[in-house]
Amino acid sequence: MVTKDQLAHFFKTDFPQADIVIESIGDKSATIRKHINHNHLRPGGTVSGPVLMEVADAALYAAILAEIGLQAMAVTTNLNINFLRKPAADKDIIGECKLIKVGKLLVIGEVSLYSEGMSEPVAHAVATYAIPPPRS
Amino acid sequence: MVTKDQLAHFFKTDFPQADIVIESIGDKSATIRKHINHNHLRPGGTVSGPVLMEVADAALYAAILAEIGLQAMAVTTNLNINFLRKPAADKDIIGECKLIKVGKLLVIGEVSLYSEGMSEPVAHAVATYAIPPPRS
Amino acid sequence: MVTKDQLAHFFKTDFPQADIVIESIGDKSATIRKHINHNHLRPGGTVSGPVLMEVADAALYAAILAEIGLQAMAVTTNLNINFLRKPAADKDIIGECKLIKVGKLLVIGEVSLYSEGMSEPVAHAVATYAIPPPRS
Amino acid sequence: MVTKDQLAHFFKTDFPQADIVIESIGDKSATIRKHINHNHLRPGGTVSGPVLMEVADAALYAAILAEIGLQAMAVTTNLNINFLRKPAADKDIIGECKLIKVGKLLVIGEVSLYSEGMSEPVAHAVATYAIPPPRS
Repeated sequence: MVTKDQLAHFFKTDFPQADIVIESIGDKSATIRKHINHNHLRPGGTVSGPVLMEVADAALYAAILAEIGLQAMAVTTNLNINFLRKPAADKDIIGECKLIKVGKLLVIGEVSLYSEGMSEPVAHAVATYAIPPPRS
Repeated sequence: MVTKDQLAHFFKTDFPQADIVIESIGDKSATIRKHINHNHLRPGGTVSGPVLMEVADAALYAAILAEIGLQAMAVTTNLNINFLRKPAADKDIIGECKLIKVGKLLVIGEVSLYSEGMSEPVAHAVATYAIPPPRS
Repeated sequence: MVTKDQLAHFFKTDFPQADIVIESIGDKSATIRKHINHNHLRPGGTVSGPVLMEVADAALYAAILAEIGLQAMAVTTNLNINFLRKPAADKDIIGECKLIKVGKLLVIGEVSLYSEGMSEPVAHAVATYAIPPPRS
Repeated sequence: MVTKDQLAHFFKTDFPQADIVIESIGDKSATIRKHINHNHLRPGGTVSGPVLMEVADAALYAAILAEIGLQAMAVTTNLNINFLRKPAADKDIIGECKLIKVGKLLVIGEVSLYSEGMSEPVAHAVATYAIPPPRS
């Protein structure tokens, strides 16, 4: 079983560019946080779409590694995202992921993205990761 | 506020070909049932993908009409579905829809589809309906 | 190499419920036709969304079998469809599929759907099929 | 009619963070380039998924502005992407967008993404932009 600290350490060392904080992990679920600064904004004072997509992808990756182990290979094969509301420019983005199927080859999960402190999501994504079979 | 009986009557008279039962409606949500018979099966003894897509689409339509009224126009613009597990051939399909955004022009919802009595979904869909502006 | 006649025979015997005609097959591509009758229409005189989804799914299945052989197992894992224009009530639906990746485990293709004789598509879909590994 | 130079100037001044080059624009189409450097890579020496999503989103935005004018408002409402092949670490990413519907409220397009010089796409996306009605 992967702990939150182990997962946080993995992201810090292996995916520093994702620049995310592991807020919590649970049964087939994970919540992450992305600190938002001016590099993440687009004109009009809102968080850019690609940043939201990045957080959705990372939240699913965190939930998968928490479920199947840090040594696993896992690559995104499909991501579908709906942008729902304008994110706040001065709030972190929180990504809450729940896995809806953990198969041998494919793992599918959904992610709700929030501007911290808001009750309605700013975006919702569903994505699929492929788990390559281990080399024998 | 649309009642369950009004919504059931609407589907029976205006969309008889959908052939669905309204199980319940709630706050931005609806649950429907599709009776499965041999016409809905494909070789191997499972419910065909198009039937699942049809139930997902109808569940969202039911939730939208319950929310914004039976007189509304609403047309599907996008539907994304992931097929997760093999449905049972001899069980009804239950579709549970939750709306995640009710905007003036677009309504977005997610639907979990189950073979009745199973705890894990057989499919999961996210779809968008456009609400055409009323003609003046 | 699968011929058009072999593919047509397969659909007629193994998937009679799909009720489609193979128009042509090519390199990683296939075109199919669905005869539209009043059972496929919805109020307002247009082809229903689920019928379009069914044709999209079948077009991709046809292209896959033409490419990798009729004995193959292949199941839809994801389908994303955008509804673009109102289909004609009295025209057949034509589905043109091009495969964009033929992998060992996953095959992905896109499908443009037309009301016969119209130059602009009524819908566009992208879908993924999983190819289960052969049992040893 | 928007020229390539006008579009390039717009991206340079209004969306410098996108950091893209307009390669060409055409009838309901646009091709853009993203220079790839080490900031865009992930472990294993490949371009990260979020960078590909960003280029897909930008290619569609470029095609839309070229079609409907630089003064237009346009916001992404849905993006669906399939990751097909591993991008090269040392090649620019080229995004080729074709619009498949230009409506009053919604514009839908598809984007093929390539590592420069490769014949097979590394990813394929379909996305929808909403065009807010002008304020009266």
